[in-house]
This record gives sequence, C-alpha cells and structure tokens, in this order.
Amino acid sequence: MKDLQLAKGVRDVFPEDKIVKNKVIGTFQTIFERYGFAPLETPAIERYETLAAKFAAGEASDALKEIFPVTDQAERKLALRFDLTVPLCRFVAMNKDLKFPFKRYEIGRVYRDGPIKLGRYREFWQCDIDIVGTDSMLAEAEILAMVQAAFTQLEIPIQIKINNRKILNGILAQVGITEKESAIISIDKLDKIGVAGVSAELQEKGCSSKQIAELFTIITKGITLDALAKKITNSEAQEGIASLQELFSYLKSMKVTVGVFDVSLARGLAYYTGTVFEAVDTSGTLTCSLAGGGRYDNMIGSFMDSKEPIPAMGISFGIEPIIDFLKLKQKSVRKSPAQMYIIPVGEVLADALALTESLRSAGINVSFSIGKKGVTKNLEYARSLGIPFVGIIGENEVAKKKITLRDMATGKEDMLTVKDVVKKVF
Amino acid sequence: MKDLQLAKGVRDVFPEDKIVKNKVIGTFQTIFERYGFAPLETPAIERYETLAAKFAAGEASDALKEIFPVTDQAERKLALRFDLTVPLCRFVAMNKDLKFPFKRYEIGRVYRDGPIKLGRYREFWQCDIDIVGTDSMLAEAEILAMVQAAFTQLEIPIQIKINNRKILNGILAQVGITEKESAIISIDKLDKIGVAGVSAELQEKGCSSKQIAELFTIITKGITLDALAKKITNSEAQEGIASLQELFSYLKSMKVTVGVFDVSLARGLAYYTGTVFEAVDTSGTLTCSLAGGGRYDNMIGSFMDSKEPIPAMGISFGIEPIIDFLKLKQKSVRKSPAQMYIIPVGEVLADALALTESLRSAGINVSFSIGKKGVTKNLEYARSLGIPFVGIIGENEVAKKKITLRDMATGKEDMLTVKDVVKKVF
Repeated sequence: MKDLQLAKGVRDVFPEDKIVKNKVIGTFQTIFERYGFAPLETPAIERYETLAAKFAAGEASDALKEIFPVTDQAERKLALRFDLTVPLCRFVAMNKDLKFPFKRYEIGRVYRDGPIKLGRYREFWQCDIDIVGTDSMLAEAEILAMVQAAFTQLEIPIQIKINNRKILNGILAQVGITEKESAIISIDKLDKIGVAGVSAELQEKGCSSKQIAELFTIITKGITLDALAKKITNSEAQEGIASLQELFSYLKSMKVTVGVFDVSLARGLAYYTGTVFEAVDTSGTLTCSLAGGGRYDNMIGSFMDSKEPIPAMGISFGIEPIIDFLKLKQKSVRKSPAQMYIIPVGEVLADALALTESLRSAGINVSFSIGKKGVTKNLEYARSLGIPFVGIIGENEVAKKKITLRDMATGKEDMLTVKDVVKKVF
Repeated sequence: MKDLQLAKGVRDVFPEDKIVKNKVIGTFQTIFERYGFAPLETPAIERYETLAAKFAAGEASDALKEIFPVTDQAERKLALRFDLTVPLCRFVAMNKDLKFPFKRYEIGRVYRDGPIKLGRYREFWQCDIDIVGTDSMLAEAEILAMVQAAFTQLEIPIQIKINNRKILNGILAQVGITEKESAIISIDKLDKIGVAGVSAELQEKGCSSKQIAELFTIITKGITLDALAKKITNSEAQEGIASLQELFSYLKSMKVTVGVFDVSLARGLAYYTGTVFEAVDTSGTLTCSLAGGGRYDNMIGSFMDSKEPIPAMGISFGIEPIIDFLKLKQKSVRKSPAQMYIIPVGEVLADALALTESLRSAGINVSFSIGKKGVTKNLEYARSLGIPFVGIIGENEVAKKKITLRDMATGKEDMLTVKDVVKKVF
C-alpha cells in the first residue's frame, strides 16, 4: 500500500489539536452537568427515513442530498446522521415514558457530504444541549446561564444576542410586510450590510419604500426592549416582548450579565418558534458565532404525530471555532499531555522507573524515555513534543534520592527532591 | 412518522448508562495521559482499500465482509472503520515525520455489519493505546503499569496474564508440532476445556500422543518462567523467556503486582509477534477479559511498504464489560448527573434562582424545577431521575437565607445554610 490516503473531506485530529479539543469537551461536560443536563449517546447510523423526516419539519431540503448513505448486508436504506437534533427527536418519540422536562446534552460526530471549503469538513462534531417538554422561560434562562458559565470557564469573553421570532414577525405584520421568512433572512444581515444593504434587499423582494422606512423607525440600532414595547401595537410582537422581559428578569436573578436584546437577530433556521440567541466573541478574534440556538416548539411533535406540540429549547456550541480561539491564545504547542519527560543516565533504570511511578502517583503526567540513547537525543525528543520539563536521573541523583529538573523553556536545571519536583511541575 | 425505529444493531445509550460510560472514559483519559500517551482522533470514514489492507497483514478475512460500505456523491468506495488499529497504521504511514516512540490513545466508535447476538452491536466503542517505533520491553512495562493504574482507579480487581508468542512457538518446535497456529488456538482454551480437552483437539489436528504428552510435561498449570527456562532447549523459546524476564524486572521496579506469567495464553490474532497479555477480573463477576493486547512488530511496516519492520505494542480495553462491571456494583441508578434538585415554593423565584447559582458556583450539580407545580410532583420527578438531594426554598427559607435539604434516601429534612448544604451534598 504505497498510496495511503484519507477519504475526501475528513481529517485526522493530531495530538496537539486533540489535547485542546478534549479540554473544550471536558469543560463543556462539567458545566452542562453542573446545570443538571444528562449525557445521551445516539448512534451515528440512523434509518434514512428518520433523517429525511426533518425536512418535512421545516429544515431546508437541499441538505437532504448531503446525506451519506450506508448500506447493511440486508440492503436496508440507512444513513449517517447530519445533526444531533433528529436523533433527539427520534429518541423522545421512541421513549414515551421519559420524564419532562428532559434535559440532555450530546457531543459527537455528524456527517454531511457537501462541497469542501476551507474549514468545512464532511465529518465534524456537534455539541447540543436541549430542554424538551416545557415552554417555561426558565428553560431559556437555565441554558443562557450555562452558556455564560461555560465560556467563563474557557476564559473566552462573549456576548449573547437575544431575540424572539414573534417580535420580528409582529413588527413585519405591523408595517405590512407579508413575506416574513424572506424579509427576516435580509434583516438578519443588518450587522453585516447595514440599513442601506438590508433596505436594498427588501426593495428587491418587493417591499415598498414606506414599509422599509417604517420598519427602520422600529428596528433602530441598539433599541431596548422597553423602548420597543412603546412602539409596538401588534399583539404577537407584544407577546414576544413580554417573554423576553420575563427571561431578562430571570437572567438578572442568576447574575447572567452577557445577554443583550438584539431586535435584528433572526438566525436562519425556519423551525424556530420563539426565543433565538447567538453567542459571539467580544474580543474580536473570531467573526463567526460561538454558539446559537432557540426555541423550536413544533419539531418534536411532528416526529411523533403528537396532537399537542412538544415544546423544546436548545443550543448548539460551535466546537471548531472555540478550538480555533483557544489555539490562537495558547503560548506553546503541546504534542504530548506529558508535563515531564524522564531520562535515565547510566545504570539507574530500576531506580528511575520507581521514581517515575512516584511522580505519576502524585498526579503528574510523565513520559519515560524508551529506546532512546543519550541525553541530547532525549532532549530533542522532549522538545519536539513540547514537553515543558525534563527530569534527568543519574547515579548521583539516585544516591541523593533526587531528580535533576530541567525547565525546557529556560534551560535552567535544579537538583530537587520528588516532592519539590511535584510542586514545581504542577 | 408513526413508526420511528433505530437502525438494526445500533442502540441509544441512555443517560443512566452514559453517566457510567463517561466515568470510565474520563478515568481512562486521565490515566493514559498520566503515562504520557497523547490523544489522537481519526475519522470514522476511511477509504475501502485502506481498511482492506489489514487483511493482507494477517487479520482473519471473514471480517472483511462485515465492513459497512459508505458512498459519497462522487461514488468513491469508502467504508466505516471496523477497528482503531488500521487508522493508526494509516496515520503513521502518512506522517513520516512523527517522532518515535509515538505514544497515542484513541477512544471511539467502530462499525461491523456482523450477526447480532446478545451484547453484540454493529456500532460499538473501542479504546486503544499503542506505542509505535520501539522494540524495547519498556514499552510493555509502561503499558502494563498503566493498565494496573487504570483498574485501580476504577476499583476493579484484576490480574494480567502475560506470555510471549515465541515461547509457545518454541515449545511446539521442541516437541515437533509443525502446525503451530492451529495448535496455539487449541492451547489457548486450556483454562476452559482443560488438559483433556486440549489433548483431544490436538489429536484431531494430527498431533501424536507422544507430542501431546511431551507438550504437557512443559505446559503445566502455573509453571513459572524460571521453571520453564530449565525445561527449554529451543532458542526461540529461550529468547521469549529472556524478554519476559526483562519485562518482569521492570514491573517489579514499577510496583506492578498484578502481572503473572501464563504459558497457555495465546490470544487469537495472528499478527502478534511477541508479548501477549490479557487482563481478567479476579472478583469472578465477569468471565470475559477486560483488556488485552500484545506486540505486533510487522503490521505497520506492511502498511508502509517499509523495508524495516516498525515495531509496535498495543492494548485494547473492553469498554462494554467494564461498564457492565461498574453497573453491577453501583448502589443506585442515576438518570441525571444532578446531585441536587431545587424546588421553589411561593413567591421566591428570584431568590431561589440566585441560591441555585451560588450552589453551582460552589461546584454542585444542580437541576432547577422548570414548569412543574407543587412539591409532590417535583419530588416525584427528582425521585424518578435518582437525584439524591432536594432543596426546598420557600419564603421562610429566603427570610433565613437557608435551604431545606431533603435526603431522598432517608426522607430526612434539615434547614441549612448554603455552606452547610455544599458540605453535605458533596
């Protein structure tokens, strides 16, 4: 096999990146569970018709042709999942005895056989958190508090833009724009293309100058909920405003300070029915959003042929941009989780192994020199992996029950006891 | 969609099981990194010819027809990986600048479209740790020390049976049995079918009574390495014995006490070239092995058309039996990671939310009542999820800045400060 290659559009995550990825995933798991969300794992293979059902529920149908088909020996029509929402809907539909609210998170791979662009892969990870079975605004509050906690833990400064679909719907009704979905897609670009850009698009879509002018007396930059409430007569919009006022009062009690009302936020997906939100990096490092979600009260019911809607509220974290952010901030590249690399010098193998085990018992990640001769080659190896400390153990060290600790950043060496090594390396 | 079903042979991992699974995986990650193994992530989709290459390298070819084919829009022949060893070989072969020894672990899903039996699934997890690029017995020693540390952390009592393929090969040569592979498969069953059973099988396979009798003067139950060394004249076996003697001396220095020599251990896979080992539960709870592996010095080289072999040593943990073991030992089923569930009573919502956030800040996993009316219904919900503590916050509690903590196991209630709640729940 001379010509080994990856399948097109997939990739290996090398140790230096997987270390960062594991940190992100580990932090998420801890914080999600801190808020009482339970882990769920669904299979990557689903029946094709289950996946296709989402398109009946409002998902853009061009994604349907991006589904990766899989065939088993019985030639059943199967496919790889393209998101984690459909498996959640299927899971809820299949398990009628689930206790609501059902709070779950899932972190895993999904597959889309789409065009390959920079940063777009056919296998990628999603990280979803949802609360199913309640229309209480407390669901929104819990999820937004959790988002703040997660990014605080990762030391990423964020703002969460919050809106409610009913507000935009109501405003459009009030100014007489009837093609709402299409208008909302244009309004969502306000941050990018400005009032002039959005106006031009709306005009092209058939809105009158009067409608557009009226729209922008309401949708003004930075308008607050309270100011908006005074301009609104439409009842759907009023309902949306009242929901958000309730939400913001909860957020205040929970000391969630990163949430702001943004009347222009729409988010693309047609299936959102109420609250929508999006977390963005405020340091200006990344331009894409770090997390986003909203309320989708109709989708799960449509999977179950349920007479009553099953309300649900969810958020998806963008694992890849978050990893990119942390990689930009990190001071050095680590290709190994080892904090220390041990080099035995001379006839000290037994003692060096014993010392290594005592460092590990103290909680330090240690790699031991295997099959490498000479201090120089060993130091090169440790340096190439980005291991920050090296412990050299020779006969002198063994006699004194000490380790010569070398700080690889400075080159400085000290002969220390195991206890002092542990203190320094941690 | 009335008839939602899972694809055949795959399953959902419910929260109560995924909580245990995450504990196992988290412990593994911590311990693997403690020993300096780096995480690697390879895609679940590979080119079909890459996967098929393993069969040229010695894997039983009936597994080839269990491969799940995947097709992309360009109709390339792709497939889902059936193990984590092939992706490792492909990764090493594609990255010629990797520094050896390359120590990596990977934990992930693999796919086999085989017959569905009890406890056998078409999508399942593997957990592999390998050291590539060294033939030093220190590789074996590090991996076995890591196995002991991992099971100690999980509180699972184990023994690791250790052998070397060269020993069995040499013994068979010494007694004149030429069909070695076939004989080794029979000898591997010694624990299960005894001397009589193995003898019968060998006789069927054409071994003479004299050969079998001679074999069992050497392969006696519990024979030590030193005792065996005295009976052996074959040089290949002597080499295997010397390797294991070296390994056991390292294990002694590293205080690895769970390893024992077992002359009958073979392990099925044909590609092992030296050391083989298997970890078994000594409490008698499980009969299958919990981990197993060995040295395979020829496989990676065959992927690379390398002139020199690339030695490698690896182990695979059986995640499923380990989860089964821990589930058998656990005292209660937890369907939620929440340690505590908060019920607000009366007009206390703002205060209850603030108190909940301070419990979370203190590190406690807390779920908050959403959309449930009345203490009784809330208690039922918390009980159904197996949440061990409930915090009731009414006007009286708010006035006193306390929480009434109910221990769900005993029903006992105490009104406590947040600080005391934290102490009790942790």
